[in-house]
Amino acid sequence: MNFSSKLIEEAVDAFATLPGIGRKTALRLVLHLIRQEPEASEQFAEAIVRMRRNIKSCALCHNLADERICSICANKRRDRSTICVVESIRDVMAVEETAQYRGLYHVLGGVISPIEGVGPSDLHIASLVERVREEEVKEVIMAISPTIEGDTTIFYISKQLADQEVRLSTIARGISFGGELEYADEVTLGRSIVARVPYKKE
Amino acid sequence: MNFSSKLIEEAVDAFATLPGIGRKTALRLVLHLIRQEPEASEQFAEAIVRMRRNIKSCALCHNLADERICSICANKRRDRSTICVVESIRDVMAVEETAQYRGLYHVLGGVISPIEGVGPSDLHIASLVERVREEEVKEVIMAISPTIEGDTTIFYISKQLADQEVRLSTIARGISFGGELEYADEVTLGRSIVARVPYKKE
Repeated sequence: MNFSSKLIEEAVDAFATLPGIGRKTALRLVLHLIRQEPEASEQFAEAIVRMRRNIKSCALCHNLADERICSICANKRRDRSTICVVESIRDVMAVEETAQYRGLYHVLGGVISPIEGVGPSDLHIASLVERVREEEVKEVIMAISPTIEGDTTIFYISKQLADQEVRLSTIARGISFGGELEYADEVTLGRSIVARVPYKKE
Repeated sequence: MNFSSKLIEEAVDAFATLPGIGRKTALRLVLHLIRQEPEASEQFAEAIVRMRRNIKSCALCHNLADERICSICANKRRDRSTICVVESIRDVMAVEETAQYRGLYHVLGGVISPIEGVGPSDLHIASLVERVREEEVKEVIMAISPTIEGDTTIFYISKQLADQEVRLSTIARGISFGGELEYADEVTLGRSIVARVPYKKE
């Protein structure tokens, strides 16, 4: 594209470094900012720089944190005896969205994947084992994707925690709520028949 | 969404003010920036602030400019006797992309639209008339969208320039190159039959 302005070109290039934003979209964003007051652009830029400079990894659970300890770990009203193990910070947000969980988290930073060269030492597994050993943890819930890599990771963690007195669980797997049986994939449907649960009147 | 981080929330809100970017996309962009070095975020923010602070409207043609006069108006090698009148700076870019035009531009900033309350005095029409009067302009090409508002604008400009010795033209309208006749809309097809041109062997 021909911008006839070095300033525009640089701003478009800046936006176009972001994932999923091409140069046409970037130009639309730049022209939007030009239509706004200069203060809007400055506030926008400031929020991003402030976030990037000050964001930390929680010293306990490796979630994103504004302080040394994230707001979830620092929250006295949360159940400190339960740890939900997730792959990524996005999974923390997803579980928090459900408003069904009041314990703490532990973010692994990925799953064991020999193909991608990710081994147990690349993940925050040692610090999880230490937390379980040092703190009064009664249950570790493994909220990890039901893939081969996820299952490998769960198996590895269960071995590491085998000598600890702690209950291990995985999140329930089966047919999605509101999903239609005929559209469920056969592995999920097959396993949810095998892993059927007693019917409870509510 | 529940971010458990004020910094993340503010950065997501900042991105989500941009058009076409919702909070989920904004979060993806923020997490991308967190994976990069802090310098990347600072350079990104700096390019945007620098652009917004220093961008100007060309004193001659109202195109975006880094200096008082835009790089097209300042270019001595362009044909100063031809002015291409367009609605917006994006249209300048679109015409420049074609590499078929070597004259100057005049950006109106919109088209006359009584419904949207845009009258001739809201557009840069007076400065166009002045340029035609003061400078040695031989031709004004109206590269304005073939809509009712566009045609009204062209008609208004042609009246304003009626007493000037200048050739007026509009860009050719008709079937797109590479387009299939059967998919052309009937107005375009009908008018392109009425406005047929003599066949020239090339």
